[in-house]
Amino acid sequence: MRKKRDKIKIIPLGGLNEVGKNLTLFEYKDEIVVIDCGIKFPDDDMFGIDLVIPDISYLVKNKEKVKGIFLTHGHEDHIGAISFVLKEVNVPIYGTKLTLGILESKLKEHGLLSTTELKTVKSRDIIELEHMSVEFIRTCHSIADASAIAIHTPLGVILHTGDFKIDYTPIDGELADLGRFVELSQKGVIVLMADSTNVERPGYTMSESIVGETFERLFAKAQGRIIVATFASNVHRVRQIMQAADKYDRKVTVSGRSMENIVRVATELGYLEIAKKVMVSLDDIKKYPNDKMVVLTTGSQGEPMAALSRMAMSDHRKLFIEKGDTVIISATPIPGNEKLVSRVINQLFKKGAEVIYEALEDVHVSGHAKQEELKLIHTLVRPKFFIPVHGEYRMLKQHADLSMKLGMPEKNIILANNGDVIEVTQETIRKNGYVPSGQVFVDGLGVGDVGNIVLRDRKHLSQDGILTVVVTLEKDTGRVIAGPDIISRGFVYVRESEVLMDEAKRVAREALVYCEEKNITEWVVIKSKVKEALRVFLFEQTMRKPMILPIIVEV
Amino acid sequence: MRKKRDKIKIIPLGGLNEVGKNLTLFEYKDEIVVIDCGIKFPDDDMFGIDLVIPDISYLVKNKEKVKGIFLTHGHEDHIGAISFVLKEVNVPIYGTKLTLGILESKLKEHGLLSTTELKTVKSRDIIELEHMSVEFIRTCHSIADASAIAIHTPLGVILHTGDFKIDYTPIDGELADLGRFVELSQKGVIVLMADSTNVERPGYTMSESIVGETFERLFAKAQGRIIVATFASNVHRVRQIMQAADKYDRKVTVSGRSMENIVRVATELGYLEIAKKVMVSLDDIKKYPNDKMVVLTTGSQGEPMAALSRMAMSDHRKLFIEKGDTVIISATPIPGNEKLVSRVINQLFKKGAEVIYEALEDVHVSGHAKQEELKLIHTLVRPKFFIPVHGEYRMLKQHADLSMKLGMPEKNIILANNGDVIEVTQETIRKNGYVPSGQVFVDGLGVGDVGNIVLRDRKHLSQDGILTVVVTLEKDTGRVIAGPDIISRGFVYVRESEVLMDEAKRVAREALVYCEEKNITEWVVIKSKVKEALRVFLFEQTMRKPMILPIIVEV
Repeated sequence: MRKKRDKIKIIPLGGLNEVGKNLTLFEYKDEIVVIDCGIKFPDDDMFGIDLVIPDISYLVKNKEKVKGIFLTHGHEDHIGAISFVLKEVNVPIYGTKLTLGILESKLKEHGLLSTTELKTVKSRDIIELEHMSVEFIRTCHSIADASAIAIHTPLGVILHTGDFKIDYTPIDGELADLGRFVELSQKGVIVLMADSTNVERPGYTMSESIVGETFERLFAKAQGRIIVATFASNVHRVRQIMQAADKYDRKVTVSGRSMENIVRVATELGYLEIAKKVMVSLDDIKKYPNDKMVVLTTGSQGEPMAALSRMAMSDHRKLFIEKGDTVIISATPIPGNEKLVSRVINQLFKKGAEVIYEALEDVHVSGHAKQEELKLIHTLVRPKFFIPVHGEYRMLKQHADLSMKLGMPEKNIILANNGDVIEVTQETIRKNGYVPSGQVFVDGLGVGDVGNIVLRDRKHLSQDGILTVVVTLEKDTGRVIAGPDIISRGFVYVRESEVLMDEAKRVAREALVYCEEKNITEWVVIKSKVKEALRVFLFEQTMRKPMILPIIVEV
Repeated sequence: MRKKRDKIKIIPLGGLNEVGKNLTLFEYKDEIVVIDCGIKFPDDDMFGIDLVIPDISYLVKNKEKVKGIFLTHGHEDHIGAISFVLKEVNVPIYGTKLTLGILESKLKEHGLLSTTELKTVKSRDIIELEHMSVEFIRTCHSIADASAIAIHTPLGVILHTGDFKIDYTPIDGELADLGRFVELSQKGVIVLMADSTNVERPGYTMSESIVGETFERLFAKAQGRIIVATFASNVHRVRQIMQAADKYDRKVTVSGRSMENIVRVATELGYLEIAKKVMVSLDDIKKYPNDKMVVLTTGSQGEPMAALSRMAMSDHRKLFIEKGDTVIISATPIPGNEKLVSRVINQLFKKGAEVIYEALEDVHVSGHAKQEELKLIHTLVRPKFFIPVHGEYRMLKQHADLSMKLGMPEKNIILANNGDVIEVTQETIRKNGYVPSGQVFVDGLGVGDVGNIVLRDRKHLSQDGILTVVVTLEKDTGRVIAGPDIISRGFVYVRESEVLMDEAKRVAREALVYCEEKNITEWVVIKSKVKEALRVFLFEQTMRKPMILPIIVEV
């Protein structure tokens, strides 16, 4: 029974106006459904931060209502924050076999496996809740076992595509279930939420199988060892690499923790049959000549600690780049990683390897739908309302424009921010209020204990370093009895700047004398006089602004 | 008279295995010719560094021999280090009119204009030295008035392309002087040094005039104000923007210091006749309706302090983005700047502007030759030896491969590093020794006073901040009479981490007690005990490693 005054709230807590930390809530009466729960990698200006997770205070406040977290696929930006969330909101997690397989090893690390209810689903499975039901629908993406999620509500179907592309020749033969999209459309899709990652690119994303053809061509002509770096989670890619190896009579070994992990999980779960035939242990590779080996490895983003970088820098325990090696980097640099990747490529070339990367060959395809695929989905689904998701504002905006070109009225589109409460009724969609949202920084073991002030200080320290000024005052008289002493870090070479440092001491001393003469005894004022005098002096001398930390000791 | 045992040294001090700080020496007997003298922008891990310049100690040591610096064109990575070099090696500077026009304003800023001999040349001019002579040959690039340079030596011609592309329809009608390349080839080119920037890209770089066509199309349909951001130095681009404005009856105003500068210089020197017709002052734009205005501005790389970023962040003194504005970003992000550019685009969209950037339209073309253009040059010039220049190792390597495909024997190619001495005789080319080279960091007023230790400290500080521990000891007894006090910056929120800080004090105190009990009186040892105890404690508690700075005061 649909009622006119019924409404559903859609609350994105991550994934809008950003790439990463995807997390969306769907709230109807006393029921909340969560789709995805991911992390984001820190921006360059988030000094020292390891991960960024969504602010989940709204979820915590309403934890009685939360019926489960439903995962579209196993990438970090969709599942990475689960271990943090589970510590506060313990609910069942639903996902396909590979998705949960990948999640399991992460939960094990956090000691959460035994207390977490994991529910494996397959495509077209429907999980019935009291008011809503949640259906998984197969799609294609750069990881196997990806799903769109349809939420059947009293107002109609809300369809969330997750990350997806249309691949007519997928490696596992598992086509996106376009038929189900059409059935849902006939039933009535009230809201479509769709992946905007590639909306700026015209045309279609190529099939993953194209990359397999490139591998075969490259493997056919390689004379020595072949080393392929790719995203560990791209099981299709890994499978194609193993198949090409098998075809050219090569064995495959794996280096890099995440690659070892995923290959193990995928093999156990039956996604990598070929592995059983071609895999050999890293310790056994000496038994095979170079031209019979393929090394499958991590580090396709140039990550300095990953296996490929270690090989390039001669810092790997077991693998050394030799003249005659062919290194294939089967990935495209994520924005911000270009220089890291370039550094690794240069280093590999210098070591005598032949290096093949995206600029030279078709060794990578995207996992996200481009414009024509998006048009297909919009046209098949024919939703009443549209919310573009997964992307920076520029992409959401372009996706809104694309849907308008296909006939969607502007008023039926919502360009939302994280934290916006989007209220949907039978006839309307609108923003109505907001809930806490934002980014929580994870640094080492600390979650949320680093905030903007700490980051601002780190940035300041990174630019010009720090200068500590220590002064000892006599308790009763306030007379200076030791110091000022100055110690700096990250400012200048101390040895070559002795004169500058002596002068700085003199400036600090003068400020202290001034305070004494004026009978200034408040520490706050003394500190600020010393700080200001040094700031002006150092800027005049060096045009730099180190952090100045005056410390007063009283004895 | 060519003699068998004659040799020339080619010494690159910058521009090899990197993009930027181009500087190459050509030494024959007591004569040194220098081509270009540029800066490099700092990498992400060069915290706080403003600029990087080449190590010129070899040049300083041999300054009597240096006959002049010969400039291929006016980009920063070719002329930016001149003011630093001139302070140590005062020699004449040769360049074309626009190149020297741009240089002049820089020299004025550094107070070097009156003491510097600037010699304007034009294409085919030959500067005769005692043993060598230097000839300028017109090429095309993303700045007007670019040249290749031919050095006529007793051993034959050394041809350095500078940055170049082949443009059959250049904006100023000034075609690259391919005829002269052929003449030199007939005379005998012993060494070719050629731009490798775009060697990884197949095909041809499009003509600059393509961008003009896009501007005309976009200007024709724009309803409101048009704002175009581009590289200030691309005078051709600026001219095309002004021409499109004129065609659609709009006035042009300029915002951004470097853009104002270059437009002024280019207009004065006769490269921008159109400016006199269309330019209006920024203060006068209120006199014109939005649909009659074009704003030409800086910030196409998303630089936070540039005019476009200021407009996007509502931080510009005079210009505010309005709904209906069309913003054209006529540039491609330099690797590393993608996120900055993206941030500006998002912000402009949010303010209601239509934003047009390279992903959407042909609003930019490269200034560097792609594979087919490089093949043309190699084929026309037919050098005996080849040294690929201007590029990271991967590019130099690809360029070497390209030349081999055209018939160059591998032994006739030199893949060099900065600082290598390349010795050329009639019959041979080889590396023979090296001279000091490397990068000198400019930070504020300091040139070279920041080195690896300072940078390592800045990086450390940026990751986890600093913790200062102050202890006061009694002079005679070594007894602790005040402290330990702990002050941290960039580590944790102090207010929310009181317990941690109290515990840290306890740990420091215990270390001091231990030293007292063991009669340890050496400050170095006491400091290291305190530091180590805190390091272990903090890592256990937080998994972070802040810099720990123990300070002992004695009274």
